[in-house]
Amino acid sequence: MKSFGSDNHSGVHPDILKAIATANVEHDLAYGDDKVTARLQQLFKQLFGEQAVAIPVFNGTGANVVCLQAMTRPHHGIICAETAHINVDECGAPENYTGCKLLTVPTADGKLTPDIVKKHFGAFGVQHHSQPKVISISQTTELGTLYMPAEIKALANLAHAHDMYLHIDGSRLSNAAAALNIPFRAFTTDCGVDAFSFGGTKCGLLMGEVVVLLRPELSRDALYIRKQAMQLYSKMRFMSAQFEAFLANDLWETLASHGNRMAALLGGELAKLPNVKLAYPVQANGVFVAMPRKVIDALLKEYFFYVWNEERNEIRLMCSFDTTEEDIRNFLATAKKVTSDG
Amino acid sequence: MKSFGSDNHSGVHPDILKAIATANVEHDLAYGDDKVTARLQQLFKQLFGEQAVAIPVFNGTGANVVCLQAMTRPHHGIICAETAHINVDECGAPENYTGCKLLTVPTADGKLTPDIVKKHFGAFGVQHHSQPKVISISQTTELGTLYMPAEIKALANLAHAHDMYLHIDGSRLSNAAAALNIPFRAFTTDCGVDAFSFGGTKCGLLMGEVVVLLRPELSRDALYIRKQAMQLYSKMRFMSAQFEAFLANDLWETLASHGNRMAALLGGELAKLPNVKLAYPVQANGVFVAMPRKVIDALLKEYFFYVWNEERNEIRLMCSFDTTEEDIRNFLATAKKVTSDG
Amino acid sequence: MKSFGSDNHSGVHPDILKAIATANVEHDLAYGDDKVTARLQQLFKQLFGEQAVAIPVFNGTGANVVCLQAMTRPHHGIICAETAHINVDECGAPENYTGCKLLTVPTADGKLTPDIVKKHFGAFGVQHHSQPKVISISQTTELGTLYMPAEIKALANLAHAHDMYLHIDGSRLSNAAAALNIPFRAFTTDCGVDAFSFGGTKCGLLMGEVVVLLRPELSRDALYIRKQAMQLYSKMRFMSAQFEAFLANDLWETLASHGNRMAALLGGELAKLPNVKLAYPVQANGVFVAMPRKVIDALLKEYFFYVWNEERNEIRLMCSFDTTEEDIRNFLATAKKVTSDG
Amino acid sequence: MKSFGSDNHSGVHPDILKAIATANVEHDLAYGDDKVTARLQQLFKQLFGEQAVAIPVFNGTGANVVCLQAMTRPHHGIICAETAHINVDECGAPENYTGCKLLTVPTADGKLTPDIVKKHFGAFGVQHHSQPKVISISQTTELGTLYMPAEIKALANLAHAHDMYLHIDGSRLSNAAAALNIPFRAFTTDCGVDAFSFGGTKCGLLMGEVVVLLRPELSRDALYIRKQAMQLYSKMRFMSAQFEAFLANDLWETLASHGNRMAALLGGELAKLPNVKLAYPVQANGVFVAMPRKVIDALLKEYFFYVWNEERNEIRLMCSFDTTEEDIRNFLATAKKVTSDG
Repeated sequence: MKSFGSDNHSGVHPDILKAIATANVEHDLAYGDDKVTARLQQLFKQLFGEQAVAIPVFNGTGANVVCLQAMTRPHHGIICAETAHINVDECGAPENYTGCKLLTVPTADGKLTPDIVKKHFGAFGVQHHSQPKVISISQTTELGTLYMPAEIKALANLAHAHDMYLHIDGSRLSNAAAALNIPFRAFTTDCGVDAFSFGGTKCGLLMGEVVVLLRPELSRDALYIRKQAMQLYSKMRFMSAQFEAFLANDLWETLASHGNRMAALLGGELAKLPNVKLAYPVQANGVFVAMPRKVIDALLKEYFFYVWNEERNEIRLMCSFDTTEEDIRNFLATAKKVTSDG
Repeated sequence: MKSFGSDNHSGVHPDILKAIATANVEHDLAYGDDKVTARLQQLFKQLFGEQAVAIPVFNGTGANVVCLQAMTRPHHGIICAETAHINVDECGAPENYTGCKLLTVPTADGKLTPDIVKKHFGAFGVQHHSQPKVISISQTTELGTLYMPAEIKALANLAHAHDMYLHIDGSRLSNAAAALNIPFRAFTTDCGVDAFSFGGTKCGLLMGEVVVLLRPELSRDALYIRKQAMQLYSKMRFMSAQFEAFLANDLWETLASHGNRMAALLGGELAKLPNVKLAYPVQANGVFVAMPRKVIDALLKEYFFYVWNEERNEIRLMCSFDTTEEDIRNFLATAKKVTSDG
Repeated sequence: MKSFGSDNHSGVHPDILKAIATANVEHDLAYGDDKVTARLQQLFKQLFGEQAVAIPVFNGTGANVVCLQAMTRPHHGIICAETAHINVDECGAPENYTGCKLLTVPTADGKLTPDIVKKHFGAFGVQHHSQPKVISISQTTELGTLYMPAEIKALANLAHAHDMYLHIDGSRLSNAAAALNIPFRAFTTDCGVDAFSFGGTKCGLLMGEVVVLLRPELSRDALYIRKQAMQLYSKMRFMSAQFEAFLANDLWETLASHGNRMAALLGGELAKLPNVKLAYPVQANGVFVAMPRKVIDALLKEYFFYVWNEERNEIRLMCSFDTTEEDIRNFLATAKKVTSDG
Repeated sequence: MKSFGSDNHSGVHPDILKAIATANVEHDLAYGDDKVTARLQQLFKQLFGEQAVAIPVFNGTGANVVCLQAMTRPHHGIICAETAHINVDECGAPENYTGCKLLTVPTADGKLTPDIVKKHFGAFGVQHHSQPKVISISQTTELGTLYMPAEIKALANLAHAHDMYLHIDGSRLSNAAAALNIPFRAFTTDCGVDAFSFGGTKCGLLMGEVVVLLRPELSRDALYIRKQAMQLYSKMRFMSAQFEAFLANDLWETLASHGNRMAALLGGELAKLPNVKLAYPVQANGVFVAMPRKVIDALLKEYFFYVWNEERNEIRLMCSFDTTEEDIRNFLATAKKVTSDG
């Protein structure tokens, strides 16, 4: 049965497995000196500009930490939403590895704004306080919402005006691109983003994320940072091959759009049920709905998913590249049943 | 063409790819709560004893760091050979992540002995010195040599007598088991080893190592340590499935024995050439030979491999599960040619 | 002129300087093996119980970090008030050195309560989240408020019920003891506190704080932790002598009570001025008052002090052991003048 | 009785205590914003050049770590002698705080040379290896030896040619200046040194070292680094006043020369005894002599000192600013007695 618990519960797209098998010929150099990774490097330069340096890593936490480590020293602060993955779901890896303090702010919908960010600017120049150096956002956010390019540009401008960097946790960057229906660089490079991750694992790959660094001073030490962060994959050709396949023939778009569409369907239908309300607008592949606790409990007997906010009885339902309309219909049928039972 | 540069240059065994494909059915829970990982946990308990806790991670550096972090606090010292992978090939990850000092010692053949280790025992109880807490060995060593069970037991006894732990970097543990021709636990659990890694990547897997912890106080926090060390794979079933296949039908032994045999052949024949001498005995899948510099240079024009000791003109040649006798013959032919040219 | 900016602006009490001079005889062993430090160790055992281990360190940040490092591993979380010194005034030293995440909570008056603390308990047992391990409070708090013994006991009980520790940042512990008018141990050891700092620098010493550890498992590695935290003073006898003098003849009480009394006087009189309101009750030697911005600005022309909350126009005025009634009268006269001007 | 165990066993010079008392007037700003520290800043610029930035810290380990942290990122390596204080006597603080690996080399006399240093240069550009970034020397060395200015210049040139920095652990820098009989800057700034510590504690101060940074890119973040390293002294005027007194009227030279002279006397006389040999030349205030073990044991019954090399039966005897000729005579008398007894 399909799960709505996480896009990590999904499997691997067949084209990805095929790409791995295709790369499995003879020997090749290790640690990124292989031919496939060389091609991938060029592919990312085409996507994000000549200055882009692509650094494949194992997982999302590793990608975030490598990005943040490239941008900071331990006396720096990283401004992020209280709900950010780097704040709540990485077991303190960013603090432990970078040595920095996370400077969190509450948000309405998981999105930072210049006004919210500025609350931490009183620290500048005071030796007792961690010095703000990075604004970190997630695209799409952990609450399923989406930044418009102008919003990203505004944050980048604010960051640069204060000698700071703008970072994107892009574990679902392809869902964002599909939802915005614009090229990747239109909401990254072109908006002044300095470093971001390009997610693979949650989007149909077996495994892998790519750290993308857009400034020479950030990419200079990146190979050492990746290695020391335990994120250097020896047989890297097998990771690069996955991303090559993901970017070929717009596979990424096919998969991401599908997940987004399933979420729109699921959210739209759920919102029609009595006492069920969307907690946040459905803007990508995540659906957040508030519903009576006993309805939640009844659903949990049939499906695995996370209660995202216990106090407000909000649950999270994630759609994947391989979620089918039938999966949605089945879930909705159960939801209708337990709602009317309730 | 096959490379003798590293067992990381090899590809993936077909059975491993098959296991990944087989696991690619529907959805399953993420982060190790899946069915395959549950089975793997049992498999490791059968191999290493009921107290064994298996923690799959991404790569060898990650495996070493997770092991060491479970065993230490930052004021501790980790005694290892100067040639240890943790000392020379991990870009300082052990120091940076654990905060510990590596207490290195020179060795004759990459192997620690109780006598060598004791050189650091003067530090005990002196507040100015990092307190020795772990003896870390590699099996097989970075110089292709092998510890006998009695040697491991002696180091474990020494460690325990001083409230220390014994750790094995086992990125080539299956090569060791095949070479010793005894069960895995006969030179780990049964010798008093406290924690070790069980290598996959260099032995025919797509990717993956398993941290094995043999004491309750070490495994207690292991999940958090793995997560914070950026080594938690979300779609873990695809890693566990590889190890399941590796351990099924003694595939590990088939692959490791083959690599060892190829190395014995290569080393034996090379040693017959004029002015070529084995630098260390060939005890597993690595061959270390000293030869005239111009012979090395001529070989490097045809093959990629590492000059392991520039001063002594020693090169390293690694054999893999997929190295063929023909590969060996071709290399030997080239070696003979450049030797007689020289 | 006397400052109300900080109790760190004050000088050194003459008895303290005398004690340093007295200790300046011949040679003695370094690093805490001297006779004065041995006596100090006994003095702290008398004050806090036989299990107490006293570890003199250089400064408040060092004291907090040594305490927290003794109680945590990097995957742990430290629950504290948003206003805690460890959160806002230590440039991220706790995160950088311990590797832990600070789990902050907003408070009404700088004080934690069991209910507030529990907000972070959802993290227990979830590998993605930093595991709460310490509840850290300040006595007196950074807002000049005071915990009653029963409040401390409730937090200690809560901590212990969840395998956690209770820590006190006691940079102004003597002000608290004087205000509560009970022995030190009545609100530390006897309430179940596990580790705390005993402040000296802000209370009339030249320099020094004492880390006090109340559990064998916390004190076991404390000497190494202090050394690695760069907090080991070689000529320690000169620090220990200061604390000896501070504790002799109840000098600590004389000094702390005086500061508290001055604050009560200052706060009481200020509150009588038009448009001036106490932001928090004056419970020790700190006075927090809200006043119109232009009154603040006028006062800042004459006196150095901190605007503690820019949004709410609250200022902080600290009284020291050497603040005189005349200093208070002068300040009040200025305040009256600028208030009536305003 | 005077100790030859360490220059840390000595007390405080009366002029230093007087300076503290003199600074103890009224209130002043904390954390280095006081008038005395402002004067000290100018004093160091006069001594070391306009680019010099002086950062007072608590102790020698703190000074080294702040220097090294200003010069490195965690993937860097720090080349130093095996005998360096940062390697053997700081309980791993440099590794834990900077995250770097110490790249040690054996030396004949505690001194690095370009040739020895270059052994680690094979690491440049290889992502698996910590990247050498700092050459760290001690002046005087931990074996009582001294670098000539030309030797320092050669190391600085080598460092700069490889985009590295040269660091001096100068806990006994005044002993070096007195021994060389040249101005401080003649063997620091003028030789191309990038950062160093200027020791106080071992030279007659109550406590304190000054980190001196000679490049803008190193001093830029220094205040935050000091604070996060727990080395910021709130009542800093009392530390700055000590250094002011130390530098006034060449007090430093009087004290350092005296210690050096006492060591020369002690070493010269000891070397005349049968079976006693200088282990290293006496070039400053440390005397290292080899003698029969039973003579060492007999001496240890009367005096506290360290056996520096157990295998070679070498002991260390340190002279201080307050060691008297009579102290030396007494020690020599004992030595003669136990030698002839033996």
